Amino acid sequence: MDITSRIDHALRAAVDGASGSDAPPQLAEAIRYALFPGGARVRPRLCLAVAAACGDDRPELTNAAAASVELLHCASLVHDDMPCFDNADVRRGRPSVHAAYGEPLALLAGDGMIVLAFEVLARASGHAPERLAPLITTVAGAVGMPSGIVAGQGWESETSVPVEAYHRAKTGALFVGSAMAGAIAAGADPAPWRALGDSLGAAYQAADDLRDALCSSQEMGKPAGQDNAHDRPSLVSECGVKETVGRLEGYVAGAIASIPDCKGRASLEALIMSEAKRLKPKNLSLVAA
Amino acid sequence: MDITSRIDHALRAAVDGASGSDAPPQLAEAIRYALFPGGARVRPRLCLAVAAACGDDRPELTNAAAASVELLHCASLVHDDMPCFDNADVRRGRPSVHAAYGEPLALLAGDGMIVLAFEVLARASGHAPERLAPLITTVAGAVGMPSGIVAGQGWESETSVPVEAYHRAKTGALFVGSAMAGAIAAGADPAPWRALGDSLGAAYQAADDLRDALCSSQEMGKPAGQDNAHDRPSLVSECGVKETVGRLEGYVAGAIASIPDCKGRASLEALIMSEAKRLKPKNLSLVAA
Repeated sequence: MDITSRIDHALRAAVDGASGSDAPPQLAEAIRYALFPGGARVRPRLCLAVAAACGDDRPELTNAAAASVELLHCASLVHDDMPCFDNADVRRGRPSVHAAYGEPLALLAGDGMIVLAFEVLARASGHAPERLAPLITTVAGAVGMPSGIVAGQGWESETSVPVEAYHRAKTGALFVGSAMAGAIAAGADPAPWRALGDSLGAAYQAADDLRDALCSSQEMGKPAGQDNAHDRPSLVSECGVKETVGRLEGYVAGAIASIPDCKGRASLEALIMSEAKRLKPKNLSLVAA
Repeated sequence: MDITSRIDHALRAAVDGASGSDAPPQLAEAIRYALFPGGARVRPRLCLAVAAACGDDRPELTNAAAASVELLHCASLVHDDMPCFDNADVRRGRPSVHAAYGEPLALLAGDGMIVLAFEVLARASGHAPERLAPLITTVAGAVGMPSGIVAGQGWESETSVPVEAYHRAKTGALFVGSAMAGAIAAGADPAPWRALGDSLGAAYQAADDLRDALCSSQEMGKPAGQDNAHDRPSLVSECGVKETVGRLEGYVAGAIASIPDCKGRASLEALIMSEAKRLKPKNLSLVAA
């Protein structure tokens, strides 16, 4: 099974388990809508790539880890789009979950996806029970308090925001979690993979800041200019487009340099390079030349 | 350590781990505010009582299970009070979390508490790793889709609501989860404890419907008359006060009858009787006589 199908299959299995005739139908539909067709699936791809580099001896557990990080990422998008945060009615080129299903179901869909993210890990851990606790603490650390996605969002309510901690929590933490979860699912030491997640998360945040500042809403499939509109810390507003592009390139190089010596090195490099190409705004040469 | 201190201590340890200098201060404060001083802590009490009846051989894991179910209960209250649901500005006699901290932090506090509920289980499972997966799936089943609290809330967005499934999901599921988690934390078979959780959940829901219909907002420490105001299914509106009181008494008797033969039977009976007394509206004799 190729990587795209593997991720899709793992997510569908998770959502099927959370649906069924007992479930309130609209909420089940809202959760499915939040997950499919989905974006680039970069976090579960990273998770699978690291697991492959570590031998991937429990593919079912790796699949669950990939589904878990994507469930948590999509849950954060659903809540982040809601009126009390970004108030974004469009996501991936179509109505966001609250725009399509209303606020109550959007809030509940996010909650349900967070719960499901932990449940799928537990359900897949049967043959390797000793890997479950580190998987749960790694994934929880990436999304919860004090320094995961929820914490990153929480910084937006503070008057004084430490920009690096904010970006690291809001974006970097789940990249780190995805890489480390891939290693843990395969029974490997996750520590050597932290730097890769860190560099990729920083690259992704820099690219996101560039795209938010330079791309149209149509190109992005979601509202542009949000950092400025919400007065949020952004690398572009802090140090300009040219310097942000320079940093992005540095982070990508750092990510490649950080890959531990392993048999999957070539495919990890290829993944990073294709992501770097995909994320760079297409009109960058006009602006930053 | 008495039961109240044991629960308080477990919750404080969980929240301390999620705070610290790295965390956004207001969000950390909002989570603490949502948990302390707290209500009757009936779910963690049930969890501890069942664990005690099963031998409680891993008290640290039992404490984590108790903290986990209370974290999830309080998270559901925080989200449930928000403007898109009950729009309740008062909870436990003081401003609800969104009234005190604003909607963004209330939403994030709930999310953070859900994540933390799973994290504390993983952190406490070191000496009994084989108990972690059943704990996680039991607790997740009680709060997630297709038939936990989130599903119960989800039914409120449907035009046709199966009342029993709605109540069972919204209230009963976490009582079942609390009882069964207590058994699992102590290494026992959770199945014999399902009926106790089921009966207690049904009793609690009947009492809650009575209180919502008969008590003042001041007595309840939260807005009264919500079922009517939100056109929600309620036993009282369905079959009247007298019949609801009769059912409540039947559920309490059923809960006591369901307790498996064990050495902790007397203290479990005492817990159930004191809860039944606490929950019954004080003006019931005037109304239902």
